[in-house]
Amino acid sequence: MSILCVGSVALDSVETPFGKAERVLGGSAVFFSAAATVFSPVRVVGVVGDDYPLQELDFLGARGADLAGIEKRPGESFFWAGRYHYDLNSRDTLETRLGVFADFEPRIPVAFRDSRWVFLGNIDPTLQHRVLDQVDAPDVVVCDTMNYWIEGNRKELLSLLERVDILMVNDAEARQLADEPNLLRASRWIRERGPSIVVVKKGEHGAILFADGWVFFAPGYPLEVVFDPTGAGDAFAGGFVGYLARSGSMAEADLRRGMVYGSAMGSYAVEAFSVDRFKTLDTRDVAERVREFRAMTAFEAHVEELHV
Amino acid sequence: MSILCVGSVALDSVETPFGKAERVLGGSAVFFSAAATVFSPVRVVGVVGDDYPLQELDFLGARGADLAGIEKRPGESFFWAGRYHYDLNSRDTLETRLGVFADFEPRIPVAFRDSRWVFLGNIDPTLQHRVLDQVDAPDVVVCDTMNYWIEGNRKELLSLLERVDILMVNDAEARQLADEPNLLRASRWIRERGPSIVVVKKGEHGAILFADGWVFFAPGYPLEVVFDPTGAGDAFAGGFVGYLARSGSMAEADLRRGMVYGSAMGSYAVEAFSVDRFKTLDTRDVAERVREFRAMTAFEAHVEELHV
Repeated sequence: MSILCVGSVALDSVETPFGKAERVLGGSAVFFSAAATVFSPVRVVGVVGDDYPLQELDFLGARGADLAGIEKRPGESFFWAGRYHYDLNSRDTLETRLGVFADFEPRIPVAFRDSRWVFLGNIDPTLQHRVLDQVDAPDVVVCDTMNYWIEGNRKELLSLLERVDILMVNDAEARQLADEPNLLRASRWIRERGPSIVVVKKGEHGAILFADGWVFFAPGYPLEVVFDPTGAGDAFAGGFVGYLARSGSMAEADLRRGMVYGSAMGSYAVEAFSVDRFKTLDTRDVAERVREFRAMTAFEAHVEELHV
Repeated sequence: MSILCVGSVALDSVETPFGKAERVLGGSAVFFSAAATVFSPVRVVGVVGDDYPLQELDFLGARGADLAGIEKRPGESFFWAGRYHYDLNSRDTLETRLGVFADFEPRIPVAFRDSRWVFLGNIDPTLQHRVLDQVDAPDVVVCDTMNYWIEGNRKELLSLLERVDILMVNDAEARQLADEPNLLRASRWIRERGPSIVVVKKGEHGAILFADGWVFFAPGYPLEVVFDPTGAGDAFAGGFVGYLARSGSMAEADLRRGMVYGSAMGSYAVEAFSVDRFKTLDTRDVAERVREFRAMTAFEAHVEELHV
């Protein structure tokens, strides 16, 4: 099942304690697609400037990403430069230049309009609305957002939520959106406004899925070397949505597995700069990592008579 | 199997967004024992001033805590006052008065010296050494510490580690002790210095156990209301060590279950002020919570052929 993915297609310059990468592939749509194509074909919609090395996206095309929705416009591509600190949990943005992304007006190619799975990357909620307006009859809409829109375009974001099945945000965003520090209550507040599922991403601490009457927790995969955290959240979303679209299901068992695939894909994102790790990823790697996730959380509960 | 527990027996005044508690039971030995006695008898060693309401510890005595090692000395009991912020993840210490705890010199009663399980609560590593010197032949030594000792008495702490089987610290402490931001590498550094097991507590984000060749992750239990986080880490330790001592085992399957019992006990600690929640805890509550932990992390992995 093809996933329509709308988001940023960017160039990133990243410094970490381990090295530097200059003007490498980045952006939510790129990280999402690199992870999601492990499971499902993806139809990508975005915009780049005339400086973008589109041929570097060929590896996505070879894996089933349809890049026909990436519009090339005169001007500069979205550019982000950042530096991660010693512990890799915090970063400074050194530069952001929106370039042609500033006037991004998503146009969904006719051939993409029958998409049943839609991933709305983190863009203005007004544009996310317009994407949905152009899709015939989506079965499942998954949406990301950020503090900038929660503050700056809250009204549109709240009306968008009514059209969303799964909201994926980080813990600070969930708390800010609901104005509620308790995650369980924040997620309920959000679910009362549209999405039946809220996935809260917590970086190295893993991710939690909140549904009606149940909760699922996927740990972060403990890595020896966290090389570059950029894109981990979008790769998580790619693994999660990619797996669900592949199974064509929102059943609880699939949502649980999807969380684990998401967490696995997030871990690959941080093992190298940009989307480099995905280029060499094979099925056995993924299967092995999922087995490790299982080993990390499995226990036999035999609750015998306790002392009290 | 009785556990020898040495730590602080304190009075806490706590303010949270939900209310205030004045001079209530606190301290590492008290939280540890409240949780551990759900599983195993505990022998408590500590010191209090002549202002301590010892009769309030009777509920621990009734559950198998031997309080004969709590020394009463002229002066004031260890007193801590703190205020939690809106999101309960940060707190201000308003006042700390060590009182008689400043000159604490642990004396292990003769009847406690045959203890096979020892929990060294967070006190000066020099004193933790002296505790071990007074125990005949412990099988398993579990140790907590904090940034104050990591900075201030590092040499004694490092020599203590050689006598410790399980170190339990929070993530910041593990990183500081090993001078290494990556938790996997920090835990290996620590394990090379004595403990075969390192348990890293991460508050609401759960806890990770690092062993030789395997890792186990226990999520934090998502609560509607986090009432008072004080003592959650010590209650975690109580559940973990209590369960292990009960099974008399350091087998992997028991360590995994111990982590889940630890996380469950941590969740009870935060549901009410002080150790109040433990007073009404019964076996069915605990069994039900452990089942919920299982439901939160269980997934069926059928890694079919993937798309790549």
